[in-house]
Amino acid sequence: MTQLSDTAREYSRANAERFRLELHELLRIPSVSTDPAHAPDIQRAADWLAANMTDLGLDKVQVMPTAGYPVVYGEWLGAGPDQPTVLVYGHYDVVPAEMADGWETPPFEPVEKDGKIYGRGATDDKGQLFIHAKALESYLKTAGRAPVNMKFLIEGEEEISSPNLTPFIKANLDLLMADVCIISDTSMRTIDEPAILHSLRGMTYLEVEVQGPTDDLHSGLWGGATHNPALALVEILAKLYNPDNTIAVPGFYDDVVPLTADERAMIAKTDLTEAQFKQSTGVPAIWGDADYNIRERISARPTLDINGLWSGWSGPGPKTIIPAKAGVKLSSRLVGNQDPHKIYDQIKAYIESIAPPTVTVDVKLITTGKPALFAFDIPEMQAASRAYETAWGASPVFTRGGGSIPVVAEIADLMGIPVVMMGFGLDDDGLHSPNERFSIEMFHRGIETAIVYLDELAQL
Amino acid sequence: MTQLSDTAREYSRANAERFRLELHELLRIPSVSTDPAHAPDIQRAADWLAANMTDLGLDKVQVMPTAGYPVVYGEWLGAGPDQPTVLVYGHYDVVPAEMADGWETPPFEPVEKDGKIYGRGATDDKGQLFIHAKALESYLKTAGRAPVNMKFLIEGEEEISSPNLTPFIKANLDLLMADVCIISDTSMRTIDEPAILHSLRGMTYLEVEVQGPTDDLHSGLWGGATHNPALALVEILAKLYNPDNTIAVPGFYDDVVPLTADERAMIAKTDLTEAQFKQSTGVPAIWGDADYNIRERISARPTLDINGLWSGWSGPGPKTIIPAKAGVKLSSRLVGNQDPHKIYDQIKAYIESIAPPTVTVDVKLITTGKPALFAFDIPEMQAASRAYETAWGASPVFTRGGGSIPVVAEIADLMGIPVVMMGFGLDDDGLHSPNERFSIEMFHRGIETAIVYLDELAQL
Repeated sequence: MTQLSDTAREYSRANAERFRLELHELLRIPSVSTDPAHAPDIQRAADWLAANMTDLGLDKVQVMPTAGYPVVYGEWLGAGPDQPTVLVYGHYDVVPAEMADGWETPPFEPVEKDGKIYGRGATDDKGQLFIHAKALESYLKTAGRAPVNMKFLIEGEEEISSPNLTPFIKANLDLLMADVCIISDTSMRTIDEPAILHSLRGMTYLEVEVQGPTDDLHSGLWGGATHNPALALVEILAKLYNPDNTIAVPGFYDDVVPLTADERAMIAKTDLTEAQFKQSTGVPAIWGDADYNIRERISARPTLDINGLWSGWSGPGPKTIIPAKAGVKLSSRLVGNQDPHKIYDQIKAYIESIAPPTVTVDVKLITTGKPALFAFDIPEMQAASRAYETAWGASPVFTRGGGSIPVVAEIADLMGIPVVMMGFGLDDDGLHSPNERFSIEMFHRGIETAIVYLDELAQL
Repeated sequence: MTQLSDTAREYSRANAERFRLELHELLRIPSVSTDPAHAPDIQRAADWLAANMTDLGLDKVQVMPTAGYPVVYGEWLGAGPDQPTVLVYGHYDVVPAEMADGWETPPFEPVEKDGKIYGRGATDDKGQLFIHAKALESYLKTAGRAPVNMKFLIEGEEEISSPNLTPFIKANLDLLMADVCIISDTSMRTIDEPAILHSLRGMTYLEVEVQGPTDDLHSGLWGGATHNPALALVEILAKLYNPDNTIAVPGFYDDVVPLTADERAMIAKTDLTEAQFKQSTGVPAIWGDADYNIRERISARPTLDINGLWSGWSGPGPKTIIPAKAGVKLSSRLVGNQDPHKIYDQIKAYIESIAPPTVTVDVKLITTGKPALFAFDIPEMQAASRAYETAWGASPVFTRGGGSIPVVAEIADLMGIPVVMMGFGLDDDGLHSPNERFSIEMFHRGIETAIVYLDELAQL
């Protein structure tokens, strides 16, 4: 079978530029799932992907409706029932991007510069999901067959926490059933340090709104006897953390599985220095729980972050009001075995317990995702490790990811299969930030690694 | 001279509806000074006012340039040098208003309903400044003369704290010089409780920006070791107040002139009950420094309010970022003898002293205004009191105003004259809020009171 994968790798090299130009087409579609105004673009992205998947040789390609944005499905089952079936999960939706945020080039007009493709979604996740489509194409357009069966499940709501994906998987469990799931939606530190993730953080995302007066008030006429709702919110939020930067919500850490000495030793291998962290983020100094190293803080420990904060007048010039309302978006990244709903209940109860009687406070759950954790000594993980050695040219480390891909825990639970997270991004690709980018070299190495991994899976 | 004022009052009654229709025309111009996009509307409002003032009989009417928006000036000096000269100050600019804020009718399409004129600027200050123009018209169109000389100084930048007014007054001191200044830009509690203000609060308005990472970061990849700048800002702001709701900035109260027992007794006459305060504002409970009654808190004591707060994503749906920046607009209402620049220095020094090393903090002064305080036993104040008794039908109380009209202290300082603040608004007119309104009855009573006041001044 090795010969098939060699031929497929050659094909992928010969078609490298075309693969990138196709990716540019997909990046040009502003499929922003967080903003309902982009609904038509979401549909366009799904249609484009379905057409591309049909062209490369997948069967039964369909844009399948959900209660929200559609799922693109396609399969190639020509390897037969004796070979394993691989399910590739990815997402074609992206987060918002506007020039005003600091983009140097328009976010939906991809450009190649300094060996990178710049554009919203380049690394998260259009570029990475495309790797697996092009890996399969490289087999089908050379040998006419691949070493394993493949199914693609590409959703359009990952950036809004996949509200309709679990019902979709449940309703289509037979169609989607596989032996292993591959997801490429994560990153490594440098090109020489490939990483396979065996854990992801979960999430509880909520919104809090504080209301003081019925309408905005003139701060001169009413200031001094009115509890400013922005001040009330600030006073509540300042109590979310203890002075040692641990989270003050009672019970928050109760279900966290402690890190073992062995795992801490493994994590230490991929730790960042303070200088590296500052270099990547631009912060003047690091922060956090001093009992844990930097890598542990950003991947193996839970967090509670303010994602958005608003009240009153933020336009140009002064406006002398006491705002009627103040609001915040808050999200907590969770680790095994924290339960997102239990955490929500704890945060809500705590905020309500510290809210003053001078305002009304409304706490609302926005979305949740379970944390995921897999063993890394199973055959599917070890096969992936060998694929990197062959095609990437470096042995990968197994690490915990700090981000959340809610579907990972769901697929593992519903199908009873392992999920192998082969991330082909770089930690500083700027995903969710201005000037998001994807390394061209990593895009092509990723395709070759994916080609070899299918071969390795066939030999298990 | 009494006969002249009687005739003028009759004229004002006969022309009541026309006066209101003219005011509607002025209210239709969205002369929002806080938003540069409205610059052409500012000019239109100035031109409209100049034309109206020329029509009513003022001389030398001019739209005079400043470094910002223009001043409208006009004079009538026909009473001769033996009679006092009255300077009327007002402003034709307004704060922003949008339907989305909760307006029941379009803010720049005035309507009359339930005895009120609804529209942005109805009470603050287009309706109130118009009272004095129509009072003078009522003399000039009947007797052909007024009992005193008059000058009008109507500016277009009050809502952005009059950045160019002091230089304008200094440059035109001879032109503007008068014996007394009248300003109608304040309010009373009910129509039966007219009030003359002898004090106003000053202001220090500042902006604070906190920067953490260079760009927004993915909260999954970097959360746990990055001090969220919104959290850092929240932690700073939560330290601005002490637990007893006094302001924690060191030195903040040093220059506050203590209220005397006599003044506190006078203020107690106009105090609000907690029920009245809740009724007017919609807050669930009052707040503030328990050592002072409600009226003292909102007029005779300094404040520090959050006017605007922003960070990260406030649009629909979740966005899982650590924002790069967080910002706040803060303003402090000051009382005699607090110095706005000294207060700014104190707040800035305090914020910088508590800012953590994990973020950078930038404190910026936006604008200042000095507090004002006048004796109320002087002839010009007592003459105003008599005018209310005659034309309003009730004896006014002398009170302190909680708002800020920066020009009051400037006029008093530069011209060495008293400023009589005859406010014809109601406390619940909703100025700076949705559905701003002005009582039609008070508009007309105000014109008659202004007519009689000119007569009273002539007899001093």
